[in-house]
Amino acid sequence: MKNTFGNNVTLTLFGESHGNAIGCVIDGIASGLEVNEDEISRLLSLRRPAGAISTARREEDKFEILSGVFNGRTTGTPICITIPNKDTRSADYGAMARLARPSHADYTAHVRYSGYEDYRGGGHFSGRITAALVAAGGILIPALNRKGIFIGTHVKECAGVSDRDFGDICDDIKVLSGMEFAVLDTEKADAMKARILDARSEGDSVGGVLETAVVGLDAGIGEPWFDTLEGMISHAVFSIPAIKGIEFGAGFEFARMRGSEANDAFCIESGRVCTKTNNAGGINGGITNGMPIVFRSAVKPTPTISKEQETIDYVNIESATLSAAGRHDPCIVHRARIVVDCVTALVIADALSGKYGTDWLAK
Amino acid sequence: MKNTFGNNVTLTLFGESHGNAIGCVIDGIASGLEVNEDEISRLLSLRRPAGAISTARREEDKFEILSGVFNGRTTGTPICITIPNKDTRSADYGAMARLARPSHADYTAHVRYSGYEDYRGGGHFSGRITAALVAAGGILIPALNRKGIFIGTHVKECAGVSDRDFGDICDDIKVLSGMEFAVLDTEKADAMKARILDARSEGDSVGGVLETAVVGLDAGIGEPWFDTLEGMISHAVFSIPAIKGIEFGAGFEFARMRGSEANDAFCIESGRVCTKTNNAGGINGGITNGMPIVFRSAVKPTPTISKEQETIDYVNIESATLSAAGRHDPCIVHRARIVVDCVTALVIADALSGKYGTDWLAK
Amino acid sequence: MKNTFGNNVTLTLFGESHGNAIGCVIDGIASGLEVNEDEISRLLSLRRPAGAISTARREEDKFEILSGVFNGRTTGTPICITIPNKDTRSADYGAMARLARPSHADYTAHVRYSGYEDYRGGGHFSGRITAALVAAGGILIPALNRKGIFIGTHVKECAGVSDRDFGDICDDIKVLSGMEFAVLDTEKADAMKARILDARSEGDSVGGVLETAVVGLDAGIGEPWFDTLEGMISHAVFSIPAIKGIEFGAGFEFARMRGSEANDAFCIESGRVCTKTNNAGGINGGITNGMPIVFRSAVKPTPTISKEQETIDYVNIESATLSAAGRHDPCIVHRARIVVDCVTALVIADALSGKYGTDWLAK
Amino acid sequence: MKNTFGNNVTLTLFGESHGNAIGCVIDGIASGLEVNEDEISRLLSLRRPAGAISTARREEDKFEILSGVFNGRTTGTPICITIPNKDTRSADYGAMARLARPSHADYTAHVRYSGYEDYRGGGHFSGRITAALVAAGGILIPALNRKGIFIGTHVKECAGVSDRDFGDICDDIKVLSGMEFAVLDTEKADAMKARILDARSEGDSVGGVLETAVVGLDAGIGEPWFDTLEGMISHAVFSIPAIKGIEFGAGFEFARMRGSEANDAFCIESGRVCTKTNNAGGINGGITNGMPIVFRSAVKPTPTISKEQETIDYVNIESATLSAAGRHDPCIVHRARIVVDCVTALVIADALSGKYGTDWLAK
Repeated sequence: MKNTFGNNVTLTLFGESHGNAIGCVIDGIASGLEVNEDEISRLLSLRRPAGAISTARREEDKFEILSGVFNGRTTGTPICITIPNKDTRSADYGAMARLARPSHADYTAHVRYSGYEDYRGGGHFSGRITAALVAAGGILIPALNRKGIFIGTHVKECAGVSDRDFGDICDDIKVLSGMEFAVLDTEKADAMKARILDARSEGDSVGGVLETAVVGLDAGIGEPWFDTLEGMISHAVFSIPAIKGIEFGAGFEFARMRGSEANDAFCIESGRVCTKTNNAGGINGGITNGMPIVFRSAVKPTPTISKEQETIDYVNIESATLSAAGRHDPCIVHRARIVVDCVTALVIADALSGKYGTDWLAK
Repeated sequence: MKNTFGNNVTLTLFGESHGNAIGCVIDGIASGLEVNEDEISRLLSLRRPAGAISTARREEDKFEILSGVFNGRTTGTPICITIPNKDTRSADYGAMARLARPSHADYTAHVRYSGYEDYRGGGHFSGRITAALVAAGGILIPALNRKGIFIGTHVKECAGVSDRDFGDICDDIKVLSGMEFAVLDTEKADAMKARILDARSEGDSVGGVLETAVVGLDAGIGEPWFDTLEGMISHAVFSIPAIKGIEFGAGFEFARMRGSEANDAFCIESGRVCTKTNNAGGINGGITNGMPIVFRSAVKPTPTISKEQETIDYVNIESATLSAAGRHDPCIVHRARIVVDCVTALVIADALSGKYGTDWLAK
Repeated sequence: MKNTFGNNVTLTLFGESHGNAIGCVIDGIASGLEVNEDEISRLLSLRRPAGAISTARREEDKFEILSGVFNGRTTGTPICITIPNKDTRSADYGAMARLARPSHADYTAHVRYSGYEDYRGGGHFSGRITAALVAAGGILIPALNRKGIFIGTHVKECAGVSDRDFGDICDDIKVLSGMEFAVLDTEKADAMKARILDARSEGDSVGGVLETAVVGLDAGIGEPWFDTLEGMISHAVFSIPAIKGIEFGAGFEFARMRGSEANDAFCIESGRVCTKTNNAGGINGGITNGMPIVFRSAVKPTPTISKEQETIDYVNIESATLSAAGRHDPCIVHRARIVVDCVTALVIADALSGKYGTDWLAK
Repeated sequence: MKNTFGNNVTLTLFGESHGNAIGCVIDGIASGLEVNEDEISRLLSLRRPAGAISTARREEDKFEILSGVFNGRTTGTPICITIPNKDTRSADYGAMARLARPSHADYTAHVRYSGYEDYRGGGHFSGRITAALVAAGGILIPALNRKGIFIGTHVKECAGVSDRDFGDICDDIKVLSGMEFAVLDTEKADAMKARILDARSEGDSVGGVLETAVVGLDAGIGEPWFDTLEGMISHAVFSIPAIKGIEFGAGFEFARMRGSEANDAFCIESGRVCTKTNNAGGINGGITNGMPIVFRSAVKPTPTISKEQETIDYVNIESATLSAAGRHDPCIVHRARIVVDCVTALVIADALSGKYGTDWLAK
């Protein structure tokens, strides 16, 4: 059990919220891939909090590529990217008592690491670590794009408001790519934001559902047992804090369908094998069938809220009451979407580099 | 991407539906664990088709332990278990044309393995391979039980009928353990079965939702990034054919909750840290918090149905019509539940053997 | 730490000397590779004891391919091969006392597996397990040959007699391929055998050195750190019982050379980059340079001898004297050579399948 | 094939000689281990060039711990350590022609990375990367010491001069620990240094043999197949540039021994199982037997020499002559010894953390 993902292209995350820096190491990557630092910055900006619907705290996310890139291209050796933590004047954490924020990882971190965890700002469990993941995505996503593979995620549901379904997925992904609050029906964004602000004003937070599509993948990617594509994607996606569910294609709706409704009839379009429907979300038997991959991830409401909550002091093991002062995100659904894109890119880059070889991605 | 799961305790599956045998290799297991062949047989019988709601084909599942067990106990070396395939007189598969069963893996297997796949009866993609997984579970589950860890799964929903929620989970798991059609409210089983028979009589099939609980796990199991407990469980569970979604705790319901409703307040009961609710399904930040693990898996309707379906001949790449003759399962939800128990046992045995050491499970 | 090797093509070994069967699972292999059972049998026969210089016990090595092969070709799914153990009427092992054969694994197995090991005939530590490794080699070696890659090992030194060095390596490998006692200078074989018989008549055993060459490998295979080609080969080769040393190219002789003697000058021959000498054994910086890979492995004398030896009863922890009755190999150097070929084939098949992709080996 | 080593405690190396920084990530480490930055610095100083027998170039090796350490102890999360590259004013590398230094990795790197490698100063292949490995050792070695496990390496042979054998290994290791030029017989150091200076004055270089011992390891560490302790150690040690051979215990000398001489008789000393000799180097069947681990590594002469050498321009694929100007090490044997200690510590920390559990090392 490790902080690393992937068999061929691997990503290792490190860092704590209030430590010197966070970062990642990408290994197994093809040599010769263009690395565009502006694109990395652009993806990081999509993850960064902005506006009234996010925390007031502003992170700069200035990254440094320490290794593995030379003359603007990957060398094929491990790429270490660091993002220094600025302006982390931690409050006085010296107190002997520590309160577990409900549904946060404070308590589980304390048990897992026998009390030696860096508890400041959530430490290694902080959502801030996802910035490193996005930086890695800033290299992987353009590489996949050059191979005709595109990934896009929209806020399918937030605070009770639903976005429209994917239509022409290729077009939709293009539109989503630059959006700060990624929805397909922009009117719905306003409604969602209004409800987020409502929750915020009540010292509360909201959750949602992200829907992701991947187009351009060949049929034949994945394994029948264990390393199914669903298994690999879910493994990666669940490491995003706040994700608590994932479903592919019709997902849980399958439970209410009959086989005759659920099955995707195969057909031939312009000499290419397709299915008439895509209830399977592009995956049969753990392996891509050439149709778009479609999956949805459930995002729980941000656990940090300013409403008073019952909890415990987990150092002294006694009851306590928590009133979180300070800044927090009333919603992270819209910020998480680029993180889902990036972990999906990692899974796909890994699978393709295994199937077609180490250097394929740069060919 | 491999047909192996696990870092410390690993399971490798092999075999094809109509080959000589299917089986598995379990490695990294503690030495000295009792191996009760009757218990393995009992678990296999729970997976085996039975009665009118299942396929008419009967498999014997007589297994042989080839290695790794001596004098009734694990030796600590790799355990190979084989289950010979009996009575697999394949129909004449010699025809030049092959029809892709919709939402089956026939086509993706053909592409993935460049036409060299053993296509008879679904080959390596057959649900029959899960028998080997259950055989492994027959060693792992009793070992976890001896450590006070219990796993149980019930048919939460099938063909539109819902079972009651878990109540006292420890008691519920005990009751479920011996049931052929595992529900908590036995009246619901009759309603479900009636609807399965309806579907069957119409040449159709149904899906459902399985709900799994694990009790007795210490707090502190899992990793913050990538090898979160949710990530590991989902990775394993998605390799069960027909599973298309998974959610932990409140799962997709989180999307409609506010943080103040969603958060699980910590409290102290008899000196032990608990949470008042368990929306997190026992996992915070990817790590167990000591509460029961609870997750639900979506099972799609069996894709093999006798209704006529449009499809293609994937050898000649042309349209075709498929009328599946012969025996099939109108529902596999109830049969899949023991498989979910077994993969869950694998994930947990793996995680605990990593955390506490190779020999811990037998101590 | 596992009984599995490889990242892309993996091999898992299982079985005990006196259990039901030994065997292996090969995963990650390309689909469409021809599987020639006669060739597997032929390689197994090279490993099998024969004549007066080997143990009197005769093993049949009749293998069965349980999965992963269909119509004479690999399907791309895991290949399980089993070799049943015949005629293993174990002596009465029921005694309470057990004597550790010096320099055997009896004692370490007992400690490692907390007394639950299958101790009969060396159990999982028996050289017999290498038969499964050779069976795997019977699939991998022909596949590499079809790619122009050839592997050959000769008995470089045995009981104080030295074979000549490799000359034209391609020719030498061809000659070695069918030999039962593989030497380049056949007169030396007679001298070696005579000394082996001497040792045998004195109830003793001898060791030796195996020298292996690989031709046909592209430059560019390997990694700079950790997964260097030397690191991968040595990792695999050391799992052959009795191997206690390995050196690449000039190896330990480098210690007595100056840089100006040791360095291999690069040159161009027929437009191809070569080196004038091959002290590096074909590997620079962990990566192949296109010259033949050359390495030597030290084989210790068979630890089982009939001379009386001091030892302990490791159950009762008391001193004892051991006089091994029964059959044993006075030398296993010549039998080990095909095993070295097979593990080398595994390392190379794994590395190439990673570099060029899963399906490359069958293209 | 990756730049990462280990199953439980893993080490990933990154960086290029003339890039921004080199470094490593250690994952899977127990929480609560003391981290003494002075000890890390001390180990780094043992690796650093010094005096006339080393390159004139001086590296500062000022490291920074970016993550995973809090209040002077490991947190249990990934530890990233970086060492910035100072003063790397690369020569004008802009020329279109590039000469392959014989027996260096320039050419193989060029092929492996398709021409995108950072070729400045050896790039990712530079011995400088071992500084990151030593920094990791600076955390692992003290942790092992606290568990009663000690590792020591001496220059057994250099430029034709041999050091004495290990005597009382525990005492010897203590003495070696602080030595810059680590020999057991200090007079031999002077002779070795004299010969190194001779080679240097002739524009040449020398090699040697390092001998390593590990004491304090329990019996029972290792696996019978593939992940034997010899296999794991050799895998790690061969990633040290210049290592071309490794032998355990009697190693290649076994080839000239009879079984009756080679076998280590078991005996009981103060109730503890020992062997009278230690030809096996502490390992039987891939598993520790409780005796000291002893192995020797062959170090080739530094390939960079100032003597004129024939070579090629590997960009234009034409013959060339190389006269390496500038600073180089006439010998790196004495500098490599701390690196061998550190990779050995990694293998052992990994094995023990697997066997006894994640947290064991800090208990």
